[in-house]
Amino acid sequence: MVTQIKNPEYPIFFGDAAEALINFLSDKSFTQLFVLTDKNTYVHCLPLLNKVPALSDARVLTIEAGEKHKNIDTCQTIWSGLMQHEADRKALLINLGGGVIGDMGGFCASTFKRGIRFLQIPTTLLSQVDASVGGKLGIDFMGVKNSIGVFQNPETVIIDPAFLKTLSPREVRSGFAEMLKHSLIRDHNQWQILTRVDPEQPENWREQIAASVAIKQQIVEADPLEKGIRKALNFGHTIGHALESFFLETSHPLLHGEAIAAGMVVEAILSEQRGLLTTAQLVAIKTEINRIYSLPAVNTETYPVLLEYMRQDKKNEQRQINCSLLHGIGNIRIDCLIPEDTIVEALNRYQDLISAD
Amino acid sequence: MVTQIKNPEYPIFFGDAAEALINFLSDKSFTQLFVLTDKNTYVHCLPLLNKVPALSDARVLTIEAGEKHKNIDTCQTIWSGLMQHEADRKALLINLGGGVIGDMGGFCASTFKRGIRFLQIPTTLLSQVDASVGGKLGIDFMGVKNSIGVFQNPETVIIDPAFLKTLSPREVRSGFAEMLKHSLIRDHNQWQILTRVDPEQPENWREQIAASVAIKQQIVEADPLEKGIRKALNFGHTIGHALESFFLETSHPLLHGEAIAAGMVVEAILSEQRGLLTTAQLVAIKTEINRIYSLPAVNTETYPVLLEYMRQDKKNEQRQINCSLLHGIGNIRIDCLIPEDTIVEALNRYQDLISAD
Repeated sequence: MVTQIKNPEYPIFFGDAAEALINFLSDKSFTQLFVLTDKNTYVHCLPLLNKVPALSDARVLTIEAGEKHKNIDTCQTIWSGLMQHEADRKALLINLGGGVIGDMGGFCASTFKRGIRFLQIPTTLLSQVDASVGGKLGIDFMGVKNSIGVFQNPETVIIDPAFLKTLSPREVRSGFAEMLKHSLIRDHNQWQILTRVDPEQPENWREQIAASVAIKQQIVEADPLEKGIRKALNFGHTIGHALESFFLETSHPLLHGEAIAAGMVVEAILSEQRGLLTTAQLVAIKTEINRIYSLPAVNTETYPVLLEYMRQDKKNEQRQINCSLLHGIGNIRIDCLIPEDTIVEALNRYQDLISAD
Repeated sequence: MVTQIKNPEYPIFFGDAAEALINFLSDKSFTQLFVLTDKNTYVHCLPLLNKVPALSDARVLTIEAGEKHKNIDTCQTIWSGLMQHEADRKALLINLGGGVIGDMGGFCASTFKRGIRFLQIPTTLLSQVDASVGGKLGIDFMGVKNSIGVFQNPETVIIDPAFLKTLSPREVRSGFAEMLKHSLIRDHNQWQILTRVDPEQPENWREQIAASVAIKQQIVEADPLEKGIRKALNFGHTIGHALESFFLETSHPLLHGEAIAAGMVVEAILSEQRGLLTTAQLVAIKTEINRIYSLPAVNTETYPVLLEYMRQDKKNEQRQINCSLLHGIGNIRIDCLIPEDTIVEALNRYQDLISAD
């Protein structure tokens, strides 16, 4: 069975990807179909679409996997593939993969012959709950993430939890952090539901994934250009991005969601310090996050490096560090400007909290 | 004095570029200004903007001149320049040059950080009357013109006939062909005015350039996605593109407008053959075009090559060659499907007409 989220701009389908794709293609007219995969999704995900008859004629373009290939050279490979197979303006590109495939494939489609249509089939939990909504496409350039790109919506997004079986448990946990974030900023009831799910059984989460996508979609729809409430989605990310950048330079880098999980704990501490969260709520959040993630230790000596990363954050204004803090569980207060000594206090508190376990 | 065409999407200013730019910048807020030039416009056109105070702090990015540099490598040079000077999302890129600078600079701006604002100052007659309207941006890729790009409107377009003094007479004549075309497809009175202008004095044509831009703008506005009437702009281009491609491979290539001028004569013959144009009208058109251009001779042996180029035209449908033909002077009939033997007859007639001089 395939269900659908109503979206004013494009539909998002949940369920069996092959069935959803057959339905989608049945009443549309495309001159050619192309599928973009990386070497992993070619092996592990493409077979799940075997029973789609229209794909027997599709051209499959396959690129190397990984963020380091999300660049203009790989775009040229993709554009060349489309050109060599004489894709015209009525062709469809189906992006089958995680965030790299979706962001880069969407960018290539949006710029090929000034724009052909594309469809997203995100295969990681992170891309299903995060990149599937918002229309942000692009590539990395000169070491800066997503610095070249466009805003463009796909024809549709198909979210099939069956793909999650192809992921390692660590990758699933990474995506789960964004689901926790969506519930914390917007939906207390959904937060309570998530505290009872089993991170080892993601393919049973269809409702939870749909609920998470619906939260992001409501927020993006209310503020597509990130002037206000869309900043809620930055909860956990000011500290989390600094941790992600710091650990990337060490011998034990964190996945995005692992860094965001730790960032959410520190920002929950900041929320409690401001009186926006009770101590009991803070402890509940820390306990749930600790159930799933082994939170990274942070030494006092690393604070200057972490603060330097935070100072570079593009959300900052007036040289103060800008966070979106929780105001109770399920509610957010955006544009909180935080003095650096307050952040140091929160990091100290974080160290105490995790060493208490 | 600066005048303005009303445009629902962005204003087009005619007159002194420095004055227009000062006016435009006076009530806008940009964090940084960048100017993109090629090596020619850096020397010959940038000095005309010397008296704009805000430009004293602008960063100037300069690239090699010519269509062969309209590619993804040059885009990377431009993006790097923006990145190195820390352009943020509130920066403005001013594109100062011909079609290559406008198309490529606009594309780079539209994709840098998912889109910064840009302003077009076209400096060739062709780009003033053609590329300044329509929102088509892009670069060449794998030898195919404009195959990578986006649709995006500039903040504004500033058209200053003073830049035309920097062009060779041959380049001015090339741009003039598009002005003739605009009048032929839409405005009989404007056609008669143009038959009296002096191609050696383009800087006095402000009204004529504005009239030409207004025609293109009305047509694009009525049909932005080229489903119908926008195809009128293809008059002269089915044959003209084939001639341009053919002569590109010879020792005496044609400029775009020179090829379009010859293409318009052949397509006027096709119009007359269909009874859409009187013989007197055809002769008038041929006489006016001949006043300005020395029309290229075409040998019977080249017909197969020309027809092959026409078969590749992306406007074709059902394997028939698609032309937009004149229906009287000042009127158009789009989507005329022409059998190849009819095109051969028209090419024979073209040879007779030009050898009769």
